[in-house]
Amino acid sequence: MKKYLPGEHCILMSRDEVRAFDNRAINELGIPGAVLMENAGRSCALFIVEKLSGKKNPKVCLFCGTGNNGGDGFVIARHLFNHGLIPLVLICGQRSKIKGDAGLNLNIIERLGIQIMSLPPADVIDFKTRVAAFAGNADMIVDAIFGTGLEGTPRDEYRKLIEAINESQKGCFELNRPVLAVDIPSGLDCDTGQPLGAAIKANWTVTFAAVKKGLAIETARNYTGEIFVASIGIDPRYKVGP
Amino acid sequence: MKKYLPGEHCILMSRDEVRAFDNRAINELGIPGAVLMENAGRSCALFIVEKLSGKKNPKVCLFCGTGNNGGDGFVIARHLFNHGLIPLVLICGQRSKIKGDAGLNLNIIERLGIQIMSLPPADVIDFKTRVAAFAGNADMIVDAIFGTGLEGTPRDEYRKLIEAINESQKGCFELNRPVLAVDIPSGLDCDTGQPLGAAIKANWTVTFAAVKKGLAIETARNYTGEIFVASIGIDPRYKVGP
Repeated sequence: MKKYLPGEHCILMSRDEVRAFDNRAINELGIPGAVLMENAGRSCALFIVEKLSGKKNPKVCLFCGTGNNGGDGFVIARHLFNHGLIPLVLICGQRSKIKGDAGLNLNIIERLGIQIMSLPPADVIDFKTRVAAFAGNADMIVDAIFGTGLEGTPRDEYRKLIEAINESQKGCFELNRPVLAVDIPSGLDCDTGQPLGAAIKANWTVTFAAVKKGLAIETARNYTGEIFVASIGIDPRYKVGP
Repeated sequence: MKKYLPGEHCILMSRDEVRAFDNRAINELGIPGAVLMENAGRSCALFIVEKLSGKKNPKVCLFCGTGNNGGDGFVIARHLFNHGLIPLVLICGQRSKIKGDAGLNLNIIERLGIQIMSLPPADVIDFKTRVAAFAGNADMIVDAIFGTGLEGTPRDEYRKLIEAINESQKGCFELNRPVLAVDIPSGLDCDTGQPLGAAIKANWTVTFAAVKKGLAIETARNYTGEIFVASIGIDPRYKVGP
């Protein structure tokens, strides 16, 4: 895993380029999507394990969306569990929407007996209390709600959820409960680096394959914290076809 | 990745237990075989990258069998390639036998343009010359010919191949061309730790999920070198069902 230094020359990817790259990896090279997701999640998990290595029985609270970013979160939870950490997975949305590789990984962690709870934003009135109840005992928070695919402002209840997570972090330095964003802080626009309504304020962002265009924009740093680039099993320099 | 210290108390797995564990992971938990293989191969690749970090454009020669141990080798080759190392993959056997997850990973590295050559033991008269030609320029040799499934003495040509690889290593300290065994040194019996005719003499063995019963037997140390245990994405302590 490589730390990205602001202003450093490196490969940047826009939202469309991320999509095309994932497509190439899966459809042209034949790497299963579950393998890309495994690499992504494992990289984050190892980062977390290292950061929490001093703690006894560390607890990690993972906010997971219903798309592939949430799927990365499920993989992270499994690897944390394997390392003896205590993951708590919060599904932020309708569980029935979770399909494909994300669904596969949700099924696995369920069979492993990892603690999974539902936090469907549409049903929640008092986010602040709910989020505080879940995240209150955690040693780290993982943001796996929205990934790079997010376009346009998310629904109001997601804005409230994101704000509640940020709110719960006030005084986080004293609380020692940092936030790790998976691929991109939820709510941040992949291309512009601007929040789409609201965005998670992370201490670290582990981004996959390559730095996203928006993350390299200086103002995004308020949301991303330190940025690290993790391999998903295929190099971003590799271009299939002409 | 955890180093195994001889005599240390830890979970040991016999050949049958490895088989049952893999089966449980795939069929009961629903982890795709390709995901287990990815974790296995990636762990080895990161180990190699670290060991060769001082070298410029390091070359790695991978002897890959036609089963899942070879498949791990193909994954290793891809991750090495992603890290800028130069892998050379030698297929030790009939290519048409390579199926399933191993076949999937062979197809991927072929599309990536990684150098792949055939070394079908049955067709080779002078192994010493062939192996020396392939391995001569390498900075490291990876043994991914046979895994834990090997039972009974392999065919004579495989014994000759294994002996030729060991032979090519004589004076390896001066040559600085160490051997990494994938899961278990090829030719070693998983349960007894005895060579089945001949076995690779490795500097390091990266074994998956748990130390294999035979590897913990003192005499096996002549073949395994230092032993490291790598996660394949599922913890060996986890038992599915009653």
